[in-house]
Amino acid sequence: MTTTTGQLEEAGAILAEESARFAGFGWMRGTSGNLSAVLSRDPLRLAVTASGHDKGELTSSDVVLVDGDGAAVDGGKPSAEAELHARVAALTGANAVVHVHTVASVAMGRREPGGIVFKDLEMLKGVGQPAHDTEVTLPVIANSQDMKVLGDRLEAARDERMPAVVVAGHGLYVWGDSPRQARHHTEVVEWLLELALTER
Amino acid sequence: MTTTTGQLEEAGAILAEESARFAGFGWMRGTSGNLSAVLSRDPLRLAVTASGHDKGELTSSDVVLVDGDGAAVDGGKPSAEAELHARVAALTGANAVVHVHTVASVAMGRREPGGIVFKDLEMLKGVGQPAHDTEVTLPVIANSQDMKVLGDRLEAARDERMPAVVVAGHGLYVWGDSPRQARHHTEVVEWLLELALTER
Amino acid sequence: MTTTTGQLEEAGAILAEESARFAGFGWMRGTSGNLSAVLSRDPLRLAVTASGHDKGELTSSDVVLVDGDGAAVDGGKPSAEAELHARVAALTGANAVVHVHTVASVAMGRREPGGIVFKDLEMLKGVGQPAHDTEVTLPVIANSQDMKVLGDRLEAARDERMPAVVVAGHGLYVWGDSPRQARHHTEVVEWLLELALTER
Amino acid sequence: MTTTTGQLEEAGAILAEESARFAGFGWMRGTSGNLSAVLSRDPLRLAVTASGHDKGELTSSDVVLVDGDGAAVDGGKPSAEAELHARVAALTGANAVVHVHTVASVAMGRREPGGIVFKDLEMLKGVGQPAHDTEVTLPVIANSQDMKVLGDRLEAARDERMPAVVVAGHGLYVWGDSPRQARHHTEVVEWLLELALTER
Repeated sequence: MTTTTGQLEEAGAILAEESARFAGFGWMRGTSGNLSAVLSRDPLRLAVTASGHDKGELTSSDVVLVDGDGAAVDGGKPSAEAELHARVAALTGANAVVHVHTVASVAMGRREPGGIVFKDLEMLKGVGQPAHDTEVTLPVIANSQDMKVLGDRLEAARDERMPAVVVAGHGLYVWGDSPRQARHHTEVVEWLLELALTER
Repeated sequence: MTTTTGQLEEAGAILAEESARFAGFGWMRGTSGNLSAVLSRDPLRLAVTASGHDKGELTSSDVVLVDGDGAAVDGGKPSAEAELHARVAALTGANAVVHVHTVASVAMGRREPGGIVFKDLEMLKGVGQPAHDTEVTLPVIANSQDMKVLGDRLEAARDERMPAVVVAGHGLYVWGDSPRQARHHTEVVEWLLELALTER
Repeated sequence: MTTTTGQLEEAGAILAEESARFAGFGWMRGTSGNLSAVLSRDPLRLAVTASGHDKGELTSSDVVLVDGDGAAVDGGKPSAEAELHARVAALTGANAVVHVHTVASVAMGRREPGGIVFKDLEMLKGVGQPAHDTEVTLPVIANSQDMKVLGDRLEAARDERMPAVVVAGHGLYVWGDSPRQARHHTEVVEWLLELALTER
Repeated sequence: MTTTTGQLEEAGAILAEESARFAGFGWMRGTSGNLSAVLSRDPLRLAVTASGHDKGELTSSDVVLVDGDGAAVDGGKPSAEAELHARVAALTGANAVVHVHTVASVAMGRREPGGIVFKDLEMLKGVGQPAHDTEVTLPVIANSQDMKVLGDRLEAARDERMPAVVVAGHGLYVWGDSPRQARHHTEVVEWLLELALTER
C-alpha cells in the first residue's frame, strides 16, 4: 500500500496542530520534541514532524514520511528520534507517538531513577489504570544517543499497562491509538508528574 | 415540565464555554472533569457534559440530559459522575456544579486528609465566608468509584458555609447558583489551595 | 469641572482592558480586585471598576464615577474598596490604582509580616528604586474591612519610594501616573514577590 | 554600507514579534529587557528595541539604529543596554541578542553565584552542547550599571560553548545566529534554569 501525498499532508496538519498545542504548554522549548502518526502497518509507515523547526510554527508540510527503521521514504530530514517513534509504534501497536521535553518529567526522572510510582489517583484511569489500591509505575530509562539502545531500554522497561516512559535527563515518550488519545495520555502523565513534583 | 432541545443546547453552549475556560487553566487534563447545570427542579433535570471528550473542544451538542439519579433521559452517555452532580444539586440547591482535576486540590488533599483549614483571608469572602478571625474548613472526602458512597461522604462531610469539597486523590467539586457563580467559586477555592501549597 | 459620560466611558474602556490583562495572569480570580483612574483633581473624581463582575469580562460601561470618599457620584455600585482607591490617589498623587489578589503577595505577606525587603535587583529600577546596595522595603499592612482603618495603615506604613503596599491576607495595592505605569509597577512588584517566593 | 529605513523597519517588525512572545511568557515584566538584531558588520549596526516601552506592545517603529558603541545613529532613544548588545554581537559574532528578566535566572544566579553547572541533559544539545558526561557551565556575572564594566565581565566569564550569561540580580543575555535561533537558545537556557530551580 502506498502512502499518498494527500495522506501525508493530512497527517502533517494534525501533527502541526498537536505540536502547537504542546508548544503552547511550554513542553517543546527551543526546537525540542517530535510527534508521529502511523499511516500504514504493512509496510509500517509513519508521518514524523521534521527536525529543527519551532514546534509552535509547523505547517502541514513540515512532516517526513519514514519507514519502520525511521528512515525517510521520499526525502526530507526526519529527526534521529524517528527511529524510536517507529519502534514504539511497532512494539505497542500505537498509532500515534508524542515525544516532549517537560521540566516535570526530567525533574522526576532525577528524583526517582528506578521508576515513578503512583497509587490511589483517579487520574490513573486516564491512562487505563485502576484508581485504587494498585501501584502503577511509570518507567524511567537511561538516555542514549543511539536509538537502537534507547529502543531496547524502552522495550525492556516498559509496563504494558502504562502508555508512557520517561527518558532520564531527556523527556517523555507517550503513545495512544490516535493523535488525540496520545495527547490525552500525555496530558495525564504530565499531570501525574506535576503532582509528584509538589511532594517533597 | 419538559426540557426542550433548545434549552438543552443553550445550556450545552454555556457549559462548553465554561469547560474551555477551565481546560485552558489546565484543570481538565486528558478528558477529566465534567460540568453541569440544572434545567428544572420538579422533576430534577440537569445538563451534564458528555463523557470522554476533550473539555477544551466541546460544542453545544456535547451535553446529556440526566434525571435526579444521573441517568440519561433522552439517550447519550453521561459520565458516571453525573449521579454525583445530580445529588449535589438536590442536596445544596445549587444550579451549577463544577468538577475539575487540579493538581493543587489533589496535592493539598494528601497533605491534609482531615480537611484544609483557612483563616484570615480576604479571598474567603468569594465563597461567602468571613475574612477575619474564623477558621473555615474545606472538607476532604475519600475517593470511591461508587457514586452513592461518594455522595454519602460528601453529604456527611460538607460544611454548609463552603460550596466545595475536595475528593482525595481525585479533584474538586464546587457549586453555585449559576454557571458563572460556580466558576467564581471554583477560581476562589483553587486560589486558596494554590496559596496553601506554597506554605510548607 | 464636570466629568462627562464620554470621559467616564473612555476610562472604562481602558480599565476593562487592563483588568482583562490582569485576569489573564490569574491575579483577579473570582470577582476579586478592582482598578481605578483619576478623572479630575478638583474635585477629586475617579473611575472605579464596578463591583461583583468577572474582571476578565468588563465592558467600558462597567465602571462607576466616585468622589474623594469613594461614594458614587452618578449612581452605580462601586466596590467598598473605592474609598481606598480615592485615598491612595489623594495621598500619593497617583492617577491610577491597581488592586489585585495575587497568590505571591499573600504568601509573602504571611512569611514577612513586617515588610518584604529587596536589595541588589535590577528590577527595582522598574519602581524607581536603586538597583544596588540599597535595601528597599515593600510594606505589609494588616487587613481590615474598614476602609478608613486600612487607609490609615497604608498612610502610616507606605514608603514614599515604593508605589505599592501588600495587604496581609488580602493582596496588592499598586499605583502610578497612568493606568499603563500602574500596570508596569504592578508587574514589577509581582515579579519581585515571585522571586522572593522561590527563596526558602 | 548604509542601513535603509526599510531594513530597520523589517528588523523592527521581527523584534516586535519576538518581544511579544517573550512578554507573553512573563519574561519582560514592566518594561524590562530588550532585543537586538545585527543589520551590518562593517560598520557594525544593530536594530535595538526602544527603551521604556511595554515589550508586549511594540510596533515595527519601536526600534533604534545603533552603532558598535550602542549610540543612536539616526536619533531615537536606545536603552543604555544597547552598548552591551553591540559588544556581544562584536565579541561572539552573533546576529541577534536577547535580554530578558526571568525569575528563574535571577533565582538561580543567587543560589549559584559562581556559575550554574548542567550535565547529562538532552536539552543541552539545544545550545550546541553534549548531552552526556560533560559539565557545562552557564556563567554568572555580577551586575553593574556601567555597560563597559558589564561587558568586560561578560567577556571574561563567558564560556564559548554556551551562548548565554546570567547577570546576577538582573536577568539573562542570550545570543544566536538569527532572531529565531536566539529565541530557541533563550527558551533552552530558561528551561535548564527552571529545571535547576526544582532541585533543592
